[in-house]
Amino acid sequence: MTQDLRIGIIGVGAMGADHAERVARRISGARLVAVSDPDTARAEALAAALTGTPGSAGSANAGGTPAGATGSDGVRVIGDPLALIGDAEVDAVIIASPGFAHAEQLMACLEHGKPVLCEKPLTMDAESSLRVVEAEHKVGRPLIQVGFMRRFDPEYARLKQLLDSGELGRTLLLHNVHRNKTVTATFHSEMIVRDSLVHEVDVARWLFDDEIARITVHAPKPTSLVAEGVLDPQLAVFEMVGGAMADVEVFVNFQVGYEVRCEAVAEKGSATIGLGVDVLTKQAGHWGGTMPDDFRVRFGLAYDIEVQRWVNAAARGEIDGPTAWDGYAAAAVCTAGVQSLQEGRPVQVEMVSRSEVFG
Amino acid sequence: MTQDLRIGIIGVGAMGADHAERVARRISGARLVAVSDPDTARAEALAAALTGTPGSAGSANAGGTPAGATGSDGVRVIGDPLALIGDAEVDAVIIASPGFAHAEQLMACLEHGKPVLCEKPLTMDAESSLRVVEAEHKVGRPLIQVGFMRRFDPEYARLKQLLDSGELGRTLLLHNVHRNKTVTATFHSEMIVRDSLVHEVDVARWLFDDEIARITVHAPKPTSLVAEGVLDPQLAVFEMVGGAMADVEVFVNFQVGYEVRCEAVAEKGSATIGLGVDVLTKQAGHWGGTMPDDFRVRFGLAYDIEVQRWVNAAARGEIDGPTAWDGYAAAAVCTAGVQSLQEGRPVQVEMVSRSEVFG
Amino acid sequence: MTQDLRIGIIGVGAMGADHAERVARRISGARLVAVSDPDTARAEALAAALTGTPGSAGSANAGGTPAGATGSDGVRVIGDPLALIGDAEVDAVIIASPGFAHAEQLMACLEHGKPVLCEKPLTMDAESSLRVVEAEHKVGRPLIQVGFMRRFDPEYARLKQLLDSGELGRTLLLHNVHRNKTVTATFHSEMIVRDSLVHEVDVARWLFDDEIARITVHAPKPTSLVAEGVLDPQLAVFEMVGGAMADVEVFVNFQVGYEVRCEAVAEKGSATIGLGVDVLTKQAGHWGGTMPDDFRVRFGLAYDIEVQRWVNAAARGEIDGPTAWDGYAAAAVCTAGVQSLQEGRPVQVEMVSRSEVFG
Amino acid sequence: MTQDLRIGIIGVGAMGADHAERVARRISGARLVAVSDPDTARAEALAAALTGTPGSAGSANAGGTPAGATGSDGVRVIGDPLALIGDAEVDAVIIASPGFAHAEQLMACLEHGKPVLCEKPLTMDAESSLRVVEAEHKVGRPLIQVGFMRRFDPEYARLKQLLDSGELGRTLLLHNVHRNKTVTATFHSEMIVRDSLVHEVDVARWLFDDEIARITVHAPKPTSLVAEGVLDPQLAVFEMVGGAMADVEVFVNFQVGYEVRCEAVAEKGSATIGLGVDVLTKQAGHWGGTMPDDFRVRFGLAYDIEVQRWVNAAARGEIDGPTAWDGYAAAAVCTAGVQSLQEGRPVQVEMVSRSEVFG
Repeated sequence: MTQDLRIGIIGVGAMGADHAERVARRISGARLVAVSDPDTARAEALAAALTGTPGSAGSANAGGTPAGATGSDGVRVIGDPLALIGDAEVDAVIIASPGFAHAEQLMACLEHGKPVLCEKPLTMDAESSLRVVEAEHKVGRPLIQVGFMRRFDPEYARLKQLLDSGELGRTLLLHNVHRNKTVTATFHSEMIVRDSLVHEVDVARWLFDDEIARITVHAPKPTSLVAEGVLDPQLAVFEMVGGAMADVEVFVNFQVGYEVRCEAVAEKGSATIGLGVDVLTKQAGHWGGTMPDDFRVRFGLAYDIEVQRWVNAAARGEIDGPTAWDGYAAAAVCTAGVQSLQEGRPVQVEMVSRSEVFG
Repeated sequence: MTQDLRIGIIGVGAMGADHAERVARRISGARLVAVSDPDTARAEALAAALTGTPGSAGSANAGGTPAGATGSDGVRVIGDPLALIGDAEVDAVIIASPGFAHAEQLMACLEHGKPVLCEKPLTMDAESSLRVVEAEHKVGRPLIQVGFMRRFDPEYARLKQLLDSGELGRTLLLHNVHRNKTVTATFHSEMIVRDSLVHEVDVARWLFDDEIARITVHAPKPTSLVAEGVLDPQLAVFEMVGGAMADVEVFVNFQVGYEVRCEAVAEKGSATIGLGVDVLTKQAGHWGGTMPDDFRVRFGLAYDIEVQRWVNAAARGEIDGPTAWDGYAAAAVCTAGVQSLQEGRPVQVEMVSRSEVFG
Repeated sequence: MTQDLRIGIIGVGAMGADHAERVARRISGARLVAVSDPDTARAEALAAALTGTPGSAGSANAGGTPAGATGSDGVRVIGDPLALIGDAEVDAVIIASPGFAHAEQLMACLEHGKPVLCEKPLTMDAESSLRVVEAEHKVGRPLIQVGFMRRFDPEYARLKQLLDSGELGRTLLLHNVHRNKTVTATFHSEMIVRDSLVHEVDVARWLFDDEIARITVHAPKPTSLVAEGVLDPQLAVFEMVGGAMADVEVFVNFQVGYEVRCEAVAEKGSATIGLGVDVLTKQAGHWGGTMPDDFRVRFGLAYDIEVQRWVNAAARGEIDGPTAWDGYAAAAVCTAGVQSLQEGRPVQVEMVSRSEVFG
Repeated sequence: MTQDLRIGIIGVGAMGADHAERVARRISGARLVAVSDPDTARAEALAAALTGTPGSAGSANAGGTPAGATGSDGVRVIGDPLALIGDAEVDAVIIASPGFAHAEQLMACLEHGKPVLCEKPLTMDAESSLRVVEAEHKVGRPLIQVGFMRRFDPEYARLKQLLDSGELGRTLLLHNVHRNKTVTATFHSEMIVRDSLVHEVDVARWLFDDEIARITVHAPKPTSLVAEGVLDPQLAVFEMVGGAMADVEVFVNFQVGYEVRCEAVAEKGSATIGLGVDVLTKQAGHWGGTMPDDFRVRFGLAYDIEVQRWVNAAARGEIDGPTAWDGYAAAAVCTAGVQSLQEGRPVQVEMVSRSEVFG
């Protein structure tokens, strides 16, 4: 038996707290040892809640994932995130802080040679992302994995497998729908591109195994159920380098629930995931089912798989998922997307070539 | 951190080998240390394959389950199953031997005070099952969990939760469909009751939280795609003590694939699971999706959850799932079911009352 | 151009009024010329409403049926139903009176040699139905068509066509669900058999092209949302002469809406109709669609097709649908079904053979 | 009873022959009296086939439409389409000739004051369409109905009704899919816009009750299963004057079958039609259903309703469906669409305002 990987988490807002609970209770081969957050009280409450509580794994696990927590004997709170990264008792880091803090924290992880799972976005713009890619390249081995967890969702994985099998011929088009029930009033138009659309940017790059060459982000007349000035929904069109295309509806105030759907259209057929058919009820004049309130319900299992595979890989000194380059490419596309949204026209994506970085 | 639970498995046919691989590679907090099978070569091949192979967990896990194997440093082959049960290095036992061997092996587990997960059926008839229940009762604490894994399937679990919530009112009826693609030619009419229908016997008892009072097993004119004399499909009707009812189609040579479906009808609505909608393809003049070939695809996640929760519970000296009593009740119902099939009429289920056993 | 068929309708309750509106406004080649009802005011109001109103056909036709009303220049009210049948200006009759009045009215139609579309049941019991069959046989040509309109529903028609094609092999089983939102408090247990289950009796006979040999009608503990003493839902099992079987859930106080579903299970596959997927909405936390309130929504098109085809056939002196014999067989099965419900056991269906009547 | 409307049909290719059979056999209140086609043999064969055959209506009608043919006692073949239009025995005209012939034939109908149902496109370009609109305006009453039959499809009608009800709030977006199994090799890129996409042009204008202001037609790298140089599939984006948007995938060599789907996204929910769920089969390792080979299966009922309602309206001297203006607007949008396809950029739609024509 190997020693558990000791994990520190930076940022314990909704996403970070979710990861903390995941590492402490559901992931095996790892232990949560430290958390850091500017809101110290929040960090301390979480640390206290997750200290010494392996036993509840089974019942906490209604979502269906086998529980295998090896527990967390003691979770320390470390005020300075850079101190957490440098801490000798921390083997690997999960970054769930706000995006603007990522660049510095990633650089620190690289300096300490520590594996890091960084929630998207890698950084706030293409330029700083490229610097991270270059810095990691100098380290000589991949340390950074980016949190595009769609790739770990069983449905997306099956779609990828089906498309790659060639059974349907070459893939020509993707139609994507990405809807949130509601978001906070501060979620402005540009964030819809950088925080929501970015997932489909990665999905399109991954499913097509190709870069995005040009992006158009259309803004139809917005829903009235959103703050003045916010362009929601948005309709994006990606043109891939190889000529395939994707469209995406992003609608972050859909009111109904969380819905993510993807239809791939290929030469000999199509395939759709995200239909959300599970328990079918007939009730109150209605047939159908419920829609999840948020992504943690829809993608809970994907997050579990993502983190478990990252832990397994990190223990071997590897990563097992989207790379820093994927984070850089997504940042470059989103930058172009924001410009398209502002100028109402297609915008070319500007990226360096892989060979410029990796030789 | 606690010590891993050391597990021995008796019987390494399809089901036992599946469990062995599960314990060795996907379950955390447990280690596979021994296997036993009359076919020694098969046992040795499996032991060799599973010795020292924790690393492949992640990639073996395409089905979506977070991998958490703590591995198996060395898996011994023990010829005599009773010796395996008595072995000092074995903490807990999984019985996946043929049903006729269960009674003796279960008694041995009770004698040694070892937690045991016993594949269904508990034993071959109600009488011997009752003796197991009584013997466990004398031990004074539950050691036996029976492998009715439907209860751990996320869809069944959500159905149970929905029905128990009272949102739909009292449950009145269950409609069940249980279809296999094909079975071996030796799978005779009585086995359809004892090995297939038995799952719905447990489902009905569990969902209604009630015993079955009367059972009718109808045999329509059989499919021509089955061996002469085998009554397949069968149509069973259960009448619960409390007056609710369930019907079940069991069809073990359906040709199309493996399909398990359950619709619960309540006073204010109905709920259906097992629709099997996942990736929707349009291909070759057809819309729809594929059906799984067998139960390991449909219920793979349920088995993982079942065994993980059993391991977690066994480490605490408990069980977490169907009891020996559930195994006894199922045996009593199936015995009556076989009689109904033979005599073409409803048959009353004969069971002792719980108070006769537990006082 | 041929002369329109002049139609008289007996009974203008819900069903009869629906037929009157259908004949007056949607059916071509026919005219509504007379109605009869014990409630004269009701008959007069309807006659007035339907006199001289062909023009609204198009807009009345939201359900999708091409409108082709040749209108109704004047609809007379005739107090005595037998006078309506004998009226020289009436070419053909639709009987939508209560079941107990059918026998006499059918006999009068036979005497006058007038084509008649008789709503189910043919008559209230097997004996009187047999007498109608024999009387029609003496007339020497079929004049009576029974209103089992499921056969005209496009979905049932496609199911029949698929099963008859042999593509799925021999049909082994039918699973039927027949649910009403609610019924009036006077709808007692026996009516559930005679008025609701009777549709599935005809469906099973028609799809299997076989008679029902034995019927069991189970009564689970009833829903609490029904009058004291009414056995609702019921679960019926039909055993066909040829050995195939069917089960039927009839639940006339389902609360949710009107639902009729049929799954046929054959040697090489299954086919299900009645899924009710049409417009899929996502709204208020929910995906799915609405359920119709009653059969007129679900089967409106089937009624239109039934009556149009009957009109076309009647103009040629023929019928085009279920025969008096089908009405007799259904009555015989329902009589046995009521007995089964009362005695809690399977009951053999007693019918004369076709050759006893037709030689 | 009124006299039947006597109808002449110009062009008896696939579409025209379909209409001829419809008028002769399924529509009531109308008679087919004349056909015209450059291929005289084809016209004569059709006329012979449809002369004096009203009786088969019922059985020809398996698709579900009530049959109401008043028949066609004699169908004349008239060589010159303009002679057919001017014929004193022809009350109304259906134009199913190639698009380039429409302008002259429509003008002739206007001169003779005859109601005309013109298959789309109205004419080949916006300019000539505008001249038709102006000529009809001078006549002083609407005589021209354009064959955008989607509006008569029950599913589209329900979608329109749902959106207009306001239940889902204001409609923001439409996602459309329009796929043919295959088309002939001569069906070039521009025809995909003018003959296929034109349907969604009308659907968007109708559902939004608004004009299209700007159109982008993207051409992803084409499927390899199409003739060299044909841009298939295409991805179009419409921007409505009021700010709503629609996207459309048009893919005329989809291989799988004919599929038309529309999802409307509104402020409080979405609604999708065209799911094609009817009979659900489980067969050969697969669950699902078949896809129709062509539009006549999918939209057969819509055509029946369209023509019946047009006949009803024409008998009153009215139209009941899309107007010549709708045909003009569609032509203007398609002209811009073709330009966008050629130039790879969004193109503004150029149309006169209604007030310029109608004052």
